Amino acid sequence: MKILVVNAGSSSLKYQLIDMDGEKELAKGLVERIGIEGSRLKHSAGEKKTEIAEKIPDHEAAAQLMLKILQDPEFGVIRSTDEIGAVGHRVLHGGSAFTASVIVNDAAKQAIRDCFPLGPLHNPANLMGIEACEKVMKGTPQVAVFDTAFHQTMPPKAYMYGVPKMYEEKLHVRRYGFHGTSHRYVSRRVCDFLGVKPEGKRIIIAHLGNGSSLSAVKDGKCVDTSMGLTPLEGLLMGTRCGSCDPAVV
Amino acid sequence: MKILVVNAGSSSLKYQLIDMDGEKELAKGLVERIGIEGSRLKHSAGEKKTEIAEKIPDHEAAAQLMLKILQDPEFGVIRSTDEIGAVGHRVLHGGSAFTASVIVNDAAKQAIRDCFPLGPLHNPANLMGIEACEKVMKGTPQVAVFDTAFHQTMPPKAYMYGVPKMYEEKLHVRRYGFHGTSHRYVSRRVCDFLGVKPEGKRIIIAHLGNGSSLSAVKDGKCVDTSMGLTPLEGLLMGTRCGSCDPAVV
Repeated sequence: MKILVVNAGSSSLKYQLIDMDGEKELAKGLVERIGIEGSRLKHSAGEKKTEIAEKIPDHEAAAQLMLKILQDPEFGVIRSTDEIGAVGHRVLHGGSAFTASVIVNDAAKQAIRDCFPLGPLHNPANLMGIEACEKVMKGTPQVAVFDTAFHQTMPPKAYMYGVPKMYEEKLHVRRYGFHGTSHRYVSRRVCDFLGVKPEGKRIIIAHLGNGSSLSAVKDGKCVDTSMGLTPLEGLLMGTRCGSCDPAVV
Repeated sequence: MKILVVNAGSSSLKYQLIDMDGEKELAKGLVERIGIEGSRLKHSAGEKKTEIAEKIPDHEAAAQLMLKILQDPEFGVIRSTDEIGAVGHRVLHGGSAFTASVIVNDAAKQAIRDCFPLGPLHNPANLMGIEACEKVMKGTPQVAVFDTAFHQTMPPKAYMYGVPKMYEEKLHVRRYGFHGTSHRYVSRRVCDFLGVKPEGKRIIIAHLGNGSSLSAVKDGKCVDTSMGLTPLEGLLMGTRCGSCDPAVV
């Protein structure tokens, strides 16, 4: 089965088409400056690379252009969108509603919408990406993969802040954690490497990049992480201060 | 030598008279509700206890009442204030100016004043306590003991936050650490207990109370601590949230 992976930003749409038989990347690309002057698509399939500069007014147009180039006789890798078994969308914030990835339906979309205040930059864009793909790939399952879901196994002592409880109950102020797809993957992969089972193992994972976070994984489940209500908390990062005295704000 | 220790708050003044020969407490007390209706002094010297309820309009009056009861024929422990060799004042914030305790002079008072923005609740009250004692004990050395001084040996990697450098240069936003008198004392006392020298030793100190903080001490010097720009950061405390995502603010 071929899976299309989509990460939609407010003016961008990244994609990758993966053949799950062998987990091989078939093609990948990036639509930039959606709705802004100078919009374009960069696409590559193996050694073959191309770039298309044209007016791309919205995410639906971006999704259409992505499908067009994926089916292009020269630069494409599929003959029909029917070959795409499902689309996986990275969604920043699932709040406390999602402990795993879900097939997108109206309830899931509403839950993503409910998390707009928690992920104001990413969640609206992520939802635009989902709705654009729904329109141009009718009938293909859309799956939402949350950056927060893996950390939902944290106990209260890890996710509660020392602030009035009503902030959590009414405003959803608590630790969520991010980079969940990475922490989840690495925590399983390391067990594969070591030839052990996750059960009975305690693992510390360092996800280091421009954004960075740590997580503690016990018996295969996340028990603590360094990022918090937002991806700001924790390690010092490229463009984020990480933990500092709340009084600094 | 007898040392008078003073901790002045905005409407209170705590004191303790200590005979340094044997480090024995001779008397202690608390003046409450200075400048507020219902002001009073509670005093004890060993088993003898007394309470005086009278109008105490300001810190100078509080200091006078403290000296009066210390010289009282029944509840006092000294005959003359000349017996007091020096007065030690707890001062919350010494900023980056003080790496140790200092004898108070005009420059020290100005430095304490310069730290008002960093310790807005405590530093003005601490200075009031110093100035009150200067007036009622002319000629007696007044010593400022800073809560922050012990932590001034921290390296930049411990005290710098991931915020623009100008915040430190212009606004003095950096980690200072507090409870320094406690961390300093405990770090030395533990070496006494163990019969070792601080050099070559690595010690973690947990100061646990309504306010709590940790410090890491290497070779007798503080290299890191959990409290930050203010005493808010670090552990979850009785009335302070401790570390939380700066975005929570």
